[in-house]
Amino acid sequence: MIKINVMYPYTEGARFDHAYYRDRHMPMVKARLGDACAYYTVEKGLAGGAPGAPPAFVAMCAFICGSAEGYQAAMRAHGAEIRGDIANYTDIAPVIQLSEVVVERSDP
Amino acid sequence: MIKINVMYPYTEGARFDHAYYRDRHMPMVKARLGDACAYYTVEKGLAGGAPGAPPAFVAMCAFICGSAEGYQAAMRAHGAEIRGDIANYTDIAPVIQLSEVVVERSDP
Repeated sequence: MIKINVMYPYTEGARFDHAYYRDRHMPMVKARLGDACAYYTVEKGLAGGAPGAPPAFVAMCAFICGSAEGYQAAMRAHGAEIRGDIANYTDIAPVIQLSEVVVERSDP
Repeated sequence: MIKINVMYPYTEGARFDHAYYRDRHMPMVKARLGDACAYYTVEKGLAGGAPGAPPAFVAMCAFICGSAEGYQAAMRAHGAEIRGDIANYTDIAPVIQLSEVVVERSDP
């Protein structure tokens, strides 16, 4: 199981529409990824580790997928539409990384 | 619901013991956080977004907690022990941020 992390660096004065991201962009991406993506998570950065510091990332999401190949195949088919929607909610270029899921969710 | 993200920037030549992190450090932190933390997640960075690029972070974890205050109170009590264990698995200083959980887990 892998995660695709999409992280938007905090940038003074930059634009980020969290409601559009949650209500429009993320469900659209999930629909395009189809079975390649089991589920996704979304979060909004509130603060950094040091007192008074801004968060490193103003928003982050992760797509939890069965394999990198499945994700990449879906992105080859739908990447242009997905990337084309980014300007509708932000002018920040995201940092993207592929991770291996080590602990999906610890025992509660 | 909030998330504490702890992210270890990829650093050429740096040390990171993923097994120790998964098997020793993270369960110890969860035990110290107690009821302040509902559960945690752990991942290992594999690759960046561009072909051949390293991941931004060699490892990331998140503690999903009911409130920032509960987490902070537990860290005041146990932070020294937790921070003291970091040298046992890495020489990388983590980036920490507090996030609001917007979508904990989308419908599967």
